[in-house]
Amino acid sequence: MKATIERATLLKSLSHVQSVVERRNTIPILSNVLLEASADGAIRLMATDLDLQIVESVSAAVDQAGATTVSAHTLFDIARKLPEGSQVELAASEGKMQINAGRARFNLATLPRDDFPVIAEGELPTRFELPAQTLRQIIDKTRFAISTEETRYYLNGIFWHVSDEAQPVLKAAATDGHRLARVTVPRPDGAEGMPDVIIPRKCVAELRKLLDEVDGSVEVSLSPTKIRFGLGTAVLTSKLIDGTFPDYSRVIPTGNDKMLKIDPRSFEEGVDRVATIATEKTRAVKMALERDKITLSVTSPENGTAAEEVPGEYVSEGFEIGFNARYLLDILGQIEGDAVEVHLADAAAPTLIRENDKAPALYVLMPMRV
Amino acid sequence: MKATIERATLLKSLSHVQSVVERRNTIPILSNVLLEASADGAIRLMATDLDLQIVESVSAAVDQAGATTVSAHTLFDIARKLPEGSQVELAASEGKMQINAGRARFNLATLPRDDFPVIAEGELPTRFELPAQTLRQIIDKTRFAISTEETRYYLNGIFWHVSDEAQPVLKAAATDGHRLARVTVPRPDGAEGMPDVIIPRKCVAELRKLLDEVDGSVEVSLSPTKIRFGLGTAVLTSKLIDGTFPDYSRVIPTGNDKMLKIDPRSFEEGVDRVATIATEKTRAVKMALERDKITLSVTSPENGTAAEEVPGEYVSEGFEIGFNARYLLDILGQIEGDAVEVHLADAAAPTLIRENDKAPALYVLMPMRV
Repeated sequence: MKATIERATLLKSLSHVQSVVERRNTIPILSNVLLEASADGAIRLMATDLDLQIVESVSAAVDQAGATTVSAHTLFDIARKLPEGSQVELAASEGKMQINAGRARFNLATLPRDDFPVIAEGELPTRFELPAQTLRQIIDKTRFAISTEETRYYLNGIFWHVSDEAQPVLKAAATDGHRLARVTVPRPDGAEGMPDVIIPRKCVAELRKLLDEVDGSVEVSLSPTKIRFGLGTAVLTSKLIDGTFPDYSRVIPTGNDKMLKIDPRSFEEGVDRVATIATEKTRAVKMALERDKITLSVTSPENGTAAEEVPGEYVSEGFEIGFNARYLLDILGQIEGDAVEVHLADAAAPTLIRENDKAPALYVLMPMRV
Repeated sequence: MKATIERATLLKSLSHVQSVVERRNTIPILSNVLLEASADGAIRLMATDLDLQIVESVSAAVDQAGATTVSAHTLFDIARKLPEGSQVELAASEGKMQINAGRARFNLATLPRDDFPVIAEGELPTRFELPAQTLRQIIDKTRFAISTEETRYYLNGIFWHVSDEAQPVLKAAATDGHRLARVTVPRPDGAEGMPDVIIPRKCVAELRKLLDEVDGSVEVSLSPTKIRFGLGTAVLTSKLIDGTFPDYSRVIPTGNDKMLKIDPRSFEEGVDRVATIATEKTRAVKMALERDKITLSVTSPENGTAAEEVPGEYVSEGFEIGFNARYLLDILGQIEGDAVEVHLADAAAPTLIRENDKAPALYVLMPMRV
């Protein structure tokens, strides 16, 4: 293999693929990126952790087609430090890869390309397109609720399923048992009959990073065990979580009869301020609801007390309820409009939060005893 | 105590004083900031770790003079989150301090001001002024060489001493045994007969932060055991390290007869690039010197090899020498001009690095076997 590539092109592509590579690997080749130069003037870069795989194609001047694998993080670090605007020569032979750029020469150990593991995609019969903007929204409004508890592995991702309601929809949901986030979007053409899937947290994170650079549409292809996202020059393929997502619709309250309507920004800032004195042990913020007057407060045996009044529309009977301040802030941070509806029942019941009944996103938050 | 202060003023001052307060304290009051409101319209804020003390005065509308102490980090976090432009009311009584701003109210536990430890400065007979710019230079060009080895506590700071040479000078030096950095400036008026002092690392760090906001001059007062820096509204007082700094002048080579003259930027970038493949175990970069040609290289059994040629003026006989890449980069990062002199003797001898023989800063670097 022998090819020349612009430093900026190599760097950008490596910044995408190296982030799939784990820092510590017991299998040496998993630390490497596969570089495959083809005679038609392209280099394919590929990285994997055996569950998630990324492939990206970039244009290059290829003198001699061929392939090799080298340490992804080392190659990335080298590309970062090479002079701006330089041309990078890559030449692999006899277990080594030579990198020349400007006055610098590197010689890296390689591992054979044939040892590089590739995720067998198999058939991916469900295929549809999603606007990048929609996919960003789905991820941003749900990912914070993904559980990190490894024992509940089936909650370690975003659950996607299609449903026929007034209109056919695609729903994305994540929960950790304390809060639930769900986004509903119109079902894209081709998603009918889609199997239920749970997309793992790491795939979500890498996908979200790539989406920052994508306009237009993303091609989604999936089977019950694999999913593939085609984003222009990059293709992300992930195994899906092999588990059953709980029937989350049962925890979405439908009969909450007390409604608070409030400005999400002053609500968010108020919660953030009173939570200043909360400690790891006491992260609960108390909301005392009175007619058109909401008082947020935190009491910490260590630090003292904090309280703030926030104006809001509320006409039901007064009561008090507590929430984890962090969880409340996560949700409020996703509310873009200038009003948010908080549907309450009592101090022990799940609370529903949404912009309004037409908003694609909906959140459920379990209260805390205060 | 009762006073009203602008949030921006309070925040800025707290950002200075809270950084002296350690995150973990076995003595509770050391977590606190002393607030002292005086009838003449000022609040004095004070924090200490028993070795280093900061006092800052800010203007405020004082209704009732008095003093109290509250958690420095909590008060700082509160001030950060208060609305921009708000007026902050502080009112202390009966073991509590009330903080009101906008719609937010906080009630913090206090500890009695009389329990707050104050460093007894004693007499500080040596007094002089240093331009803030000079003090910044002294710190920046030496602090990276301060030792972090606690067993060699006498190296955990910057050594200041005066000396009569062609002209009277003040010298600041730091070393960790592997490298030495020294800055020489004209002796300021009042520094004659100054005792030798070692200024501790933490004092240096806090002083450097404060210097970012200071123009003009800094008042320095010291005794053999304490030093005080007056920086406008802030006063930093520190105990000095009670130890003997080694006679570092003996390690500054005077007979190095091989001189390399090189562009510090391309040298720095070259070292940084070849060091990419260095590992924790092999941080040595090798310099092969030939007539007007310097080749930097790193060999890592794990990663491979890297080499780069850097142009430089060199006419002595060729040889090879190794340096810790990190240490070399630390020094080159402080060279501002467009040429640096590297005075070498042989592969095992201390190497002298400086811009030229008139530069205030001088560095000595021990080589590594490569």
